[in-house]
This record gives sequence, C-alpha cells and structure tokens, in this order.
Amino acid sequence: MSALLYDRVALIGLGLIASSMAHAMRWKGLAREITGHARSPETRATALEIGLCDRVFATAAEAVEGADLVVLCVPVGVMGAIAAEIGPHLAPGATVTDVGSVKQAVIDAVAPHIPAGVHFVPGHPLAGTEHSGPRAGFATLFQNRWWLLTPLPGSDPAATARLRALCEAMGANVDEMDAPHHDLVLAVTSHTPHLIAYTMVGVADHLRRVTESEIVKYSAAGFRDFTRIAASDPTMWRDVFLTNKDATLDILGRFTEELFMLQRAIRMGDGQQLFDYFTRTRAIRRGIIEAGQDTAAPDFGRGAPPSGTHE
Amino acid sequence: MSALLYDRVALIGLGLIASSMAHAMRWKGLAREITGHARSPETRATALEIGLCDRVFATAAEAVEGADLVVLCVPVGVMGAIAAEIGPHLAPGATVTDVGSVKQAVIDAVAPHIPAGVHFVPGHPLAGTEHSGPRAGFATLFQNRWWLLTPLPGSDPAATARLRALCEAMGANVDEMDAPHHDLVLAVTSHTPHLIAYTMVGVADHLRRVTESEIVKYSAAGFRDFTRIAASDPTMWRDVFLTNKDATLDILGRFTEELFMLQRAIRMGDGQQLFDYFTRTRAIRRGIIEAGQDTAAPDFGRGAPPSGTHE
Repeated sequence: MSALLYDRVALIGLGLIASSMAHAMRWKGLAREITGHARSPETRATALEIGLCDRVFATAAEAVEGADLVVLCVPVGVMGAIAAEIGPHLAPGATVTDVGSVKQAVIDAVAPHIPAGVHFVPGHPLAGTEHSGPRAGFATLFQNRWWLLTPLPGSDPAATARLRALCEAMGANVDEMDAPHHDLVLAVTSHTPHLIAYTMVGVADHLRRVTESEIVKYSAAGFRDFTRIAASDPTMWRDVFLTNKDATLDILGRFTEELFMLQRAIRMGDGQQLFDYFTRTRAIRRGIIEAGQDTAAPDFGRGAPPSGTHE
Repeated sequence: MSALLYDRVALIGLGLIASSMAHAMRWKGLAREITGHARSPETRATALEIGLCDRVFATAAEAVEGADLVVLCVPVGVMGAIAAEIGPHLAPGATVTDVGSVKQAVIDAVAPHIPAGVHFVPGHPLAGTEHSGPRAGFATLFQNRWWLLTPLPGSDPAATARLRALCEAMGANVDEMDAPHHDLVLAVTSHTPHLIAYTMVGVADHLRRVTESEIVKYSAAGFRDFTRIAASDPTMWRDVFLTNKDATLDILGRFTEELFMLQRAIRMGDGQQLFDYFTRTRAIRRGIIEAGQDTAAPDFGRGAPPSGTHE
C-alpha cells in the first residue's frame, strides 16, 4: 500500500528519531537510499552495522549531496550551524525538514541558509521515548502519533504534500499550523510539564540525602511518572527551554499563579476550593481519552501490576 | 502456601482498596468471612452481587461486630467519625487498621476512640489506579507494592506481625516507620506531585478555551502522565492535602524555590545551569529502576506504541 516517496533521504543526526525514521522508511519501502551523518565515529559505525543507513559521512555537507529529502535530527541549538554547512550543497528541488521540538527558533536559524529552489518545511513528530541514540529507534515509533508540520508562508504546497505523505506512510497523523501557534501549544502540553518534572525530581534529590533511599524506594505512580519524564535527554531539553523561552515563561507564570492559589487553599484549610478544582481536572482526562491519545484501562492498560495513584 | 490469618475481616468503605483486598484475601484464602459497610445502598448491593463481602451492613457498627480485623477504607476526613461509631462495638483483642494516605492525622482522629484491649495498627498501601468504586478492585493490586505500617509506641507487636503477614500474603512488601516520617516521605513522593499535576491540568484547561481542542489532541507523554494523576478521586485528595498540610507546604515551598531558579535560568538564557540540572535528575531515575519500582523498558514496557518524551 505504500510506495517509494523519495529517492535519497539524508538523515542529519542519528539519534532516536532518525533511527526510527530509518527503520520505518525501510519497513514501508519509502526511500530508495538512506544516507546519514553523525558527529561521532561510533554512531556512524553503529548506523552502518545495524543497517540504518546505506552510506554514512563524517560531514553533513557530504551526506546531503544528491538527496531529495534532508531531515535535520540534531538538537535545536545546532540547527543553524548545520544549515549553514549544508546550504551550498543542497540539490535543487530538494526538501529540507527538521524534527525539532520548537519551530519558530528553528525557522529563524535555518531558513536564511536555504537557497532558492530548495523547499524548507519544518516539522515535529510528537513521539519519543526516554531513550536516545542510534540503537533506541524502532519502526513503529510514529504509529498513531501526531506529526506537526509548520510550512512557511511561501512554502511549495507540493513539497509539503509529499512530506506529509511520508509522515503518514510511517504511521503518523499529520496536522499543519503556523510556528508560533505550535510553540504555544507545545509549551503547555509538553515543555512546561517537563520543566516541572525536572524540578520535582530535583526537590526529591535534596530530601533523599536526608532520608537516604526511602524517597526512591517508596516512589510510585505520581512521582514515578515524573522521573520518567525527567530522564529525557538534557541537551535536547536545554535547547527547548532556551529557544521556546517566551511561551514557556508565559505558561510557567500561569502555573505558579494557580499553584499559589491551591497552596493558599491548603494553608487556609479551604476544602471546598480544593475539591472543586480536582473535580474540574477530571474532565480534561476524559477529553484525552476521547481524543484517542490514551487508553481508559487502569494504569494505561499496562500488563504489570498497576502503580498507585492512591498513595 | 498462604493460610487463614483472620476469622472475620470487616471492610469499612468499599472502594478500590477494599474491593482489591477482598479479591486478594479470597484468592489466597486469608479470611474465613468478609463483612462490609458502605454508605450507599448501591455499593452494598454491588458488593454482594460480585462477591466482595459475605454480608453487608448499613452501619459500620454492625459490620465490625465479632470481627478480629477491621480495615478502615474511607477518606481520611471521615476516619474519626467512623472510629467514634465503631469504638463501642469492637471485639476485645481485635485489630483495627486503615489504608489512609496520611498517617498522623488518622492516628489523631482514630486512636482516642479505640478501647483498651483493641490493637490499632495504622497502615498505607502504596497502590491504586485512577479508578474508584467497588468494581475497580482486582486481586493483584498489591503485588510487589509497598504497604507501610506505622504502629504506635504502645502497639502490640503480635498484632502488627499478624497484619504484616496479611499484607505480605496479598503480595505486598511491608515496611514499618513512624507516622510523621511517613507523612514527610509521602509528601515528596506522592502528595506534592499530585498537587502539581492538578495545577498543570488546570492551566491547560484555561488555555484549551483559547486553542479549542488542540491542547488535548496533541498531549502526549509529559502532559498525559499529568492527566492520569489528576483524574484521581477528588475527595481523597482534598483530605490528603488538608490533613498532611505541614509536610505538603514544606515540600511545595522547596519546589517553588527550585522552579523559580530554573525559570530565572530560562529567562537569563543560562543553558549550562539547565543542562547541569537536567543531567542530575537522570540519576534519580536510575535509582528508581534499581530499586525495582519500575522497568527500564521504553515507556514502562507498554505494548502500545510509546508516547513521546521527545515533544
């Protein structure tokens, strides 16, 4: 049911997302050839060894030669430098996309280096695990996940449509929106929750020194979910916060206002206010189940014994 | 391998924990008879219909008659009223325990009503799901979960040992500690994370009105984990915060200090501070895996396609 969509795909950066794309494109027969670049010789050797790429190159400039699709899979903070390097080597008519978690900053950094006749269609797959590196990828990572594309006002609709077809062939659902809107939506659904998770784990770390290993030992659902989030790649998340600064600070401001209100309710013993607030948040959960982004089964339907929300 | 541990167990309150205890005790043959009380006639009818209890009663006082183990499975806020009601009806030599998420407040409310010759051994199983009610329980809920007991200075060691054997026979690991220490540990591993989850979901709810359904639609790992937490029972959580007030406010204070530090780092563009902080939190995650409270498999080893921490 799938068909060849690109002749040569160049993956720049060979971590979780790139390696999952390689597996998915091979599985579905979407690209004739996959080339790749990674800074580290070990990663390049791994990419050849496990068949992620047909050819790997020590420079991004070599990897993109003759490619009709170039995918930038590097941390947001180095997208600009990579774009400057590959710009002169991009084939006429090629499409360049990226998988960064922030879109306006990537556009600002990359777009100036894209020559006329090359199509830049920024993108962001809402998929991942807490693992990273070339061995972390798997072909089904994008199944039933969203892949957001943020085409520029002057983007070629045909280039966007072809990239959309690739994302869909890898199992993703695709939506298009403008970059500032993407950055706001992600600030609330992902970036701020991650920062909060990091913070909560940091607080626990301080206390752990006081109570030895108990904090870790008795952690369950609530705290455990936080730690999974907080185990994500530090470089990627540093760049997310530095480059989606305005939206994140906006959401953080709202968050601390709400938190102080609940904190005050606790201090004042206002049970009704707490009850009303907690009742309202239940409805959001139902919305997420109805939107098909989660299961209603206890504990996500995991096979293992459920972890507590009762603690 | 298990054996009868109690003759008659009275479950006061028939929600997720009580119904899971009923299933587990029957599965392992730990109690000859299980009686129960719930305020609602529907819940009592359900308990008989699905075999949770051999007999149900409209009052807690009737349910505890002749029981050698009484388990208080009601919200923390009503433990005192229930204890006052059942106190005069408790059998000499019986053990009373509870499953509340806060321990010192339960002790303060319940202990004065326990007559001489009856053993009060407070407890807290660190297990649960986001579902509630008599149909939510299942026999394996406590498997490989911690069950914390907080015996009082004057508690009878034999009564504590027998209750510990029951918890272990239901699959739990048991530890003993004093109540104030329990409340501090849980404030950081569970109570404060829950409050934060509620808050983040509340913030999203405000924004959802602005961006319609997008927030829900594009939510994945980070935010999704928050919503599961925030779907827990509002009454239970209201009581947790009202009754573990001091420890929760202490941890919240530390949390907002840390968060403001990271927020400032974002505002000042201090990437090194963010990177160092995020790197440190990774170690905690490893500690949790090593403590056997979680799996190292991507996304908790769920069968479904993993959700993103990449967003």
